[in-house]
Amino acid sequence: MQLGMIGLGRMGAGMTARLRENDHDVQTYDPQVEERTAGSLEELKQQLDAPRAFWMMVPSGKVTEDVFQHLLTLADKGDTIVDGGNSNFRDSKRRYVEAQHKGIHFVDAGVSGGIWGLEVGFCTMVGGDEEPVKRLEPIFETLAPEDGYAHVGSSGAGHFAKMVHNGIEYGLMQSYAEGFEIMDHSEYDFDLHEVAGIWRYGSVVRSWLLDLLYAAFEQHGSKLQDIAPYVEDSGEGRWTLQEAINEDVPAPMIAASLFARFQSRDEIKFSARVAAALRQQFGGHAIKLEEAKAGSDQR
Amino acid sequence: MQLGMIGLGRMGAGMTARLRENDHDVQTYDPQVEERTAGSLEELKQQLDAPRAFWMMVPSGKVTEDVFQHLLTLADKGDTIVDGGNSNFRDSKRRYVEAQHKGIHFVDAGVSGGIWGLEVGFCTMVGGDEEPVKRLEPIFETLAPEDGYAHVGSSGAGHFAKMVHNGIEYGLMQSYAEGFEIMDHSEYDFDLHEVAGIWRYGSVVRSWLLDLLYAAFEQHGSKLQDIAPYVEDSGEGRWTLQEAINEDVPAPMIAASLFARFQSRDEIKFSARVAAALRQQFGGHAIKLEEAKAGSDQR
Repeated sequence: MQLGMIGLGRMGAGMTARLRENDHDVQTYDPQVEERTAGSLEELKQQLDAPRAFWMMVPSGKVTEDVFQHLLTLADKGDTIVDGGNSNFRDSKRRYVEAQHKGIHFVDAGVSGGIWGLEVGFCTMVGGDEEPVKRLEPIFETLAPEDGYAHVGSSGAGHFAKMVHNGIEYGLMQSYAEGFEIMDHSEYDFDLHEVAGIWRYGSVVRSWLLDLLYAAFEQHGSKLQDIAPYVEDSGEGRWTLQEAINEDVPAPMIAASLFARFQSRDEIKFSARVAAALRQQFGGHAIKLEEAKAGSDQR
Repeated sequence: MQLGMIGLGRMGAGMTARLRENDHDVQTYDPQVEERTAGSLEELKQQLDAPRAFWMMVPSGKVTEDVFQHLLTLADKGDTIVDGGNSNFRDSKRRYVEAQHKGIHFVDAGVSGGIWGLEVGFCTMVGGDEEPVKRLEPIFETLAPEDGYAHVGSSGAGHFAKMVHNGIEYGLMQSYAEGFEIMDHSEYDFDLHEVAGIWRYGSVVRSWLLDLLYAAFEQHGSKLQDIAPYVEDSGEGRWTLQEAINEDVPAPMIAASLFARFQSRDEIKFSARVAAALRQQFGGHAIKLEEAKAGSDQR
């Protein structure tokens, strides 16, 4: 079927390719990409037959909001706007209501799979009304691998499920991370590339993330020397934790894995200074002077 | 090749079957199982040609120690004792030394795969000396799926790697657990069986444990109503945490996942009583009386 894809970054380009390979008619727009069918959102609208489907695959936050508001001004009644990005589900619920006021459908699609999705397919969790979701099902079913798509609930449910998916992802990643650090610091001289390698076959901890970790050891060596120990986050872990708090649900794993990322970026380590200061105050324990540390670093 | 399997529980029986299917000559002993080739360890010894290989697949702790000490008294110089159970790597190092004093080889094999190993193969991590490990490689390679076996280091390394594997497993399980609880308590009416189902295809969190969770939802329903919220542990998570402490490695994920299991078994919840008592003491906040709770439970 026909679709207007807005945003041709890694995900949007992969999805466009996968849809076209399966004979969907995808018109495209991205201000920063040459290979597109339309030079503007207005032109993209002209290239689509009503009722149109616009798929936003742009960075969450301001860009998504700007594109959404622009689409609201030009879409016709009966058209559908799909947000396939990592938006907060509360924004998606609000956008659903805003669109509804203009007779426009809004569908939130949580899409997982990263840069491997083109080949494997993208796991697709969709929230929204029955009518537009049903109409767009040929698209969702092509994007996803077999059995990798579901309409999981009403407006916002797709992005809620994707948010939790990413929260779990944080916990899985950090669990592997701790285990491999314990092996790296042990009395044994483990070849971590080898250990990750055999765990992929027959072990209880085998997973796609472990496959990727094996690939990382393969590319960067068992010590990952050239990778700085600095981990960013894109927001979904924070939101998962915020929802856990809203629901009174204990989520120490997701909290610890999010905080481990913060810690990796914390150059000042003020809490360690506070704890060291208190040990000195009440127990007279020696503190390590910052100068001494800098001096020893310079040796 | 020839092997004496001691212990025909779920794991030992599965391993025996897998080895025999691949034309190994497995003699067996288990005091509690009728289908065995030997009625005693002495008889098992008679059924094997020197240099013999005895594989212990018995519960860790006292049973392993008793069988090991018994084998030490009857094994001949050059024989090998393999411990395929979940022993602490420090015990394995000590047993290696005890065996060495008598000219007997000791090999520690961490084996993962559970009840699915017969079909899929068992991921096998082996620690010990080159000579006996090399000699027994046809056994390890048959037990494991292709590329699922490695000689990971010196004595104890196999059980160390298996210990960390299980520590990671705790973290992975608890990460999924938290995420699914957040979905279960959300404003949406998620079909968790369906969500787990689609995440198996193309998502970043796909894994064998997720496959098993999907199977559990399939068997027990999306609320898992008939499964009591009570989680045992077999010791490997505790050991992983102890080694993290020995190594000064922060392991909040493994700690939190172990403590979540303790919490699931904690009927008295004394810490919650302490916290409630303190809130009342300093802030005059109401406490919930235990009788009132019992009364409301009886309604």
